[in-house]
Amino acid sequence: MPQLAYVNGQILPLASATLHVEDRGTQFGDAIYEVCAVLNGQILDWQPHLVRLRRNLAELGITLATADGPLGLQARRLIARNGHRECLLYIQISRGTARRDHAFPQGAPANLVMTVRRFDFAQRVRQLGSGIKVITRADDRWGRVDIKTTGLLPNVLAKQAAREAGAFEAWLVAGSEVREGSSTNAWIVKDGRIITHPTGTHILPGIARDSLIRMAREAQMVVEERAFTLAEARDADEAFLTSTTALILPVVAINGEAVAGGKPGPVTHRLAELVWNEVARQTGWRA
Amino acid sequence: MPQLAYVNGQILPLASATLHVEDRGTQFGDAIYEVCAVLNGQILDWQPHLVRLRRNLAELGITLATADGPLGLQARRLIARNGHRECLLYIQISRGTARRDHAFPQGAPANLVMTVRRFDFAQRVRQLGSGIKVITRADDRWGRVDIKTTGLLPNVLAKQAAREAGAFEAWLVAGSEVREGSSTNAWIVKDGRIITHPTGTHILPGIARDSLIRMAREAQMVVEERAFTLAEARDADEAFLTSTTALILPVVAINGEAVAGGKPGPVTHRLAELVWNEVARQTGWRA
Repeated sequence: MPQLAYVNGQILPLASATLHVEDRGTQFGDAIYEVCAVLNGQILDWQPHLVRLRRNLAELGITLATADGPLGLQARRLIARNGHRECLLYIQISRGTARRDHAFPQGAPANLVMTVRRFDFAQRVRQLGSGIKVITRADDRWGRVDIKTTGLLPNVLAKQAAREAGAFEAWLVAGSEVREGSSTNAWIVKDGRIITHPTGTHILPGIARDSLIRMAREAQMVVEERAFTLAEARDADEAFLTSTTALILPVVAINGEAVAGGKPGPVTHRLAELVWNEVARQTGWRA
Repeated sequence: MPQLAYVNGQILPLASATLHVEDRGTQFGDAIYEVCAVLNGQILDWQPHLVRLRRNLAELGITLATADGPLGLQARRLIARNGHRECLLYIQISRGTARRDHAFPQGAPANLVMTVRRFDFAQRVRQLGSGIKVITRADDRWGRVDIKTTGLLPNVLAKQAAREAGAFEAWLVAGSEVREGSSTNAWIVKDGRIITHPTGTHILPGIARDSLIRMAREAQMVVEERAFTLAEARDADEAFLTSTTALILPVVAINGEAVAGGKPGPVTHRLAELVWNEVARQTGWRA
């Protein structure tokens, strides 16, 4: 079965899914996106992703004619037609196609693209046992990284640096403050307290992050939303990261130095249990 | 005659010029570009644009198989076939097409796109008489704006704010320091000295900027490459901006307040003469 993609109302073979060269996303990074986890054919946390997508469109003044209901239906139709039970759903909305000019074009309808890509979520369960490594990089991104735009080059360069160092992720550090990873949120555990950077303009408000905070608090665990330093991270009892595609993964080394004795800790494992129970509750998927 | 574009070796109607939805430029802003002025069918400052393009590719580790000679030939062929004598040549090179993953893909050839757009350079000569207005905006761009990437959303938002305020451009200010415009370099004149922000990681090293510095010095004028403040700009004898598409334009108001008595000054006009003489020398074009 050929892979299929959705472009502006049409489902077509991925190989022939294109945008005009004068798409605003392509020429200006004038576009927002979402990535959703699909397990057992079900989209995880669809409503929060939709809320964030709408907020991002509003922040940039991009008008999408497609309403929430049809958007969800088209996404589910694309997933079903691709036949994947476990995959990532990618949704991208740009300001449209127009002759190149920085200022907003008049009357150009937004371009809506969706793709799906088969994804092995079971690897995330396996990685809970071993943990992953991170490196650090200076955070040199723009001032509104809370908006999930396609202007991801700093993130790309950080992720590539991590890959070349044999690490899973790069944590972006401003001064001494750890903000987040290039595509994940960063967390530490100290004396039983779970600590992660507060939302605002310095981090992307992760859906997995938000969901975990809620679940941890419901489980009577203490969560502090505050900036932590690299020194605190090195000295932490545990460290981990979250994202839609990573779900939750223990961090066992930072810049080649072991964290928390170089192995995943009990708080992270307890949180992972909450995450995977929630996945099962929403989608029925079990590793 | 339909408009034509160039995509990866082919010249085709602009209307059907597309990139795959998984182009790295589209999904990550993982692309660089150049805009060149074409007058009388001749590309202005082709060599400096080519040098900058190569430097930007090297900075990002993007490999373009097309050598300098063929690139220039294809650009000139596209211009000739579109039949425009006065136009803008847009060249965009992304890291290629690949399944979405932040880190660099292996073996994906770069995507090379070129478009041309008819442009009225005579308006720039007319605007020398009236000057243009600028507003200011906080510079919230990323840390490597010296690389000419397609991640231009902060620039788009600044330009849109200028447009809505009835201004031509937005000057980006960090603290009290004026860095550059959203798509132009910023200059002031004080006591006969011509002042513009030095190159480095805080501004895009404009071809028009570099060329003007050289010409001004050859004409025995004093150019200082140093940061200037917004207060200095307000108090300047003259102010102006330069870019490939603006060439050189007097600034007569900043945030609604008149600069230099609200009219273009003699130093700016002398510099404009140098710019337009150089245009004539290279291309034979005269207003």
